[in-house]
Amino acid sequence: MQKDTLIQCHRRIRPYIHNTPVLSSRAINRMAGADLLFKCENFQKGGAYKMRGATNAVLQLFGKLPVVTHSSGNFAQALSLAAKSAGVEAFIVMPSTAPQVKKNAVAEYGGKIIECEPSLAAREAAAQEIERETGAVLIHPSNDENVIVGQGTACMELLEEHPDLEFVLAPVGGGGLIAGTSLAAHYFGTSCRVIGGEPFAVDDAYRSLKSGRIEANETTDTVADGLKTQLGDKSFPLIQRYVDSIIRVTEAEIIKAMRLIWERMKIVVEPSSAVALAAVLRKKEKFADRKVGIIVSGGNVDLGNLPF
Amino acid sequence: MQKDTLIQCHRRIRPYIHNTPVLSSRAINRMAGADLLFKCENFQKGGAYKMRGATNAVLQLFGKLPVVTHSSGNFAQALSLAAKSAGVEAFIVMPSTAPQVKKNAVAEYGGKIIECEPSLAAREAAAQEIERETGAVLIHPSNDENVIVGQGTACMELLEEHPDLEFVLAPVGGGGLIAGTSLAAHYFGTSCRVIGGEPFAVDDAYRSLKSGRIEANETTDTVADGLKTQLGDKSFPLIQRYVDSIIRVTEAEIIKAMRLIWERMKIVVEPSSAVALAAVLRKKEKFADRKVGIIVSGGNVDLGNLPF
Repeated sequence: MQKDTLIQCHRRIRPYIHNTPVLSSRAINRMAGADLLFKCENFQKGGAYKMRGATNAVLQLFGKLPVVTHSSGNFAQALSLAAKSAGVEAFIVMPSTAPQVKKNAVAEYGGKIIECEPSLAAREAAAQEIERETGAVLIHPSNDENVIVGQGTACMELLEEHPDLEFVLAPVGGGGLIAGTSLAAHYFGTSCRVIGGEPFAVDDAYRSLKSGRIEANETTDTVADGLKTQLGDKSFPLIQRYVDSIIRVTEAEIIKAMRLIWERMKIVVEPSSAVALAAVLRKKEKFADRKVGIIVSGGNVDLGNLPF
Repeated sequence: MQKDTLIQCHRRIRPYIHNTPVLSSRAINRMAGADLLFKCENFQKGGAYKMRGATNAVLQLFGKLPVVTHSSGNFAQALSLAAKSAGVEAFIVMPSTAPQVKKNAVAEYGGKIIECEPSLAAREAAAQEIERETGAVLIHPSNDENVIVGQGTACMELLEEHPDLEFVLAPVGGGGLIAGTSLAAHYFGTSCRVIGGEPFAVDDAYRSLKSGRIEANETTDTVADGLKTQLGDKSFPLIQRYVDSIIRVTEAEIIKAMRLIWERMKIVVEPSSAVALAAVLRKKEKFADRKVGIIVSGGNVDLGNLPF
């Protein structure tokens, strides 16, 4: 993908998204021994960076074709909202076991929910049926070039404000955010290295980079519920090419970093968002006195079920 | 107090405080049926608006006299931090029962903690002893003209950005914030009315405005722990003169409004801060289609002990 693809994408989606603020905390900087700049996608429409990729994907469609995805998380809300802005229908396949609060959020943004059994096979089958019946276009939450480029615009905006960043960190789930981030850093940074943060419990990206092929997660036992998904064949080659390394963190480190952000920065962020800060705090020597960007992925949490 | 007093105060403290952001939420606006602008003092240094008044009070002292206050809350942290900025000593009298997390915060900001028995009499006696022994100047958390004027600068900044506000709401505890806010609205607003939000459980300001004299709280049984304090003889006359009215809210309304702010705006705010939004939601007809400012007082909460 070329530099111009990112520039055009940003121009295309800009009217539909927020250029989210960049915050910092002197207390956290002191603890980290580095100059950290947090790109706050928790303030993005729909509460997460997913709105960027979803909007780019929807706006790239010719005509007013409906869209369909299978997701129980932030992408479901993002696609519903992006489709609404663009004036197209969105069908969202969700497992029947998805929390009611997530179903409500999708419905509120105008997405049409189709329930299915809680298995990947059932989700894919239900989505295919909708494609056949309605002519809807399937948009994958992360393994889609338009989505990947869209997610990269958060890092583009961060580098516009701070062109001299030496590192940018983002969490790694399906790989869309880190792949887009690494593209943006490659084209718009000045020797800016991109590092992924990943829970030990779902370290498929770490192991995939080691082995050179896409590895599967063996468990999904992490508090960072947005990071349970697997890398895809669109995101992995970009990650191999442009991502410097992956730092793995423990569950305790994630929860501690999350609490630190809430207490010191007074913002609500998801556990997944705290993984990048946890990585910086785990490898302090690597980032000492450096200027480091952190992509805060989102703020959609169940306040009735916090890990602290 | 004259307009110029506020202008000079703002000029004096500006290098030491944040001009905090003004946020809004389309979802909350839809629920309220009004255009709400939240002045986010949870992002202020020390995590609350108290830094404004404390800084003004410290900078008004001649020489480098030490300061003393008795507080277990936000003002203790604010005065410690303000004194540190100004290069003077701060003695903080705290009840021995104060949570360790609050003692740590004061110590971290450089305040010297003096513990005493948990009663108002013991606190006042301990503060007087420090005044005698060290020559420290007592700074009251709310009933002090310099403090009141300092707190008013949050509303000044809000009106600089949005000069056409028709209402500004703030929570009422000791009365320093609402008194300062009402002064700022009087001098810098264009017929901007100031309304206080107060829990039914500690409605001393509501009853004082009715009776024309300072009434005492009979209980302190509210989740809004910052609002348990009483009006003082400096704040009350300003409130009588410049505050339009007080709206009282239930504990359930406070918790609901607090959760709404966390979920929709993705920011961490104290229960006291949610009282103003709760007041708007309780009296929707009064604010219908109006442009309404809300002073979000702070974000210092115990994350291990949330009311939801």
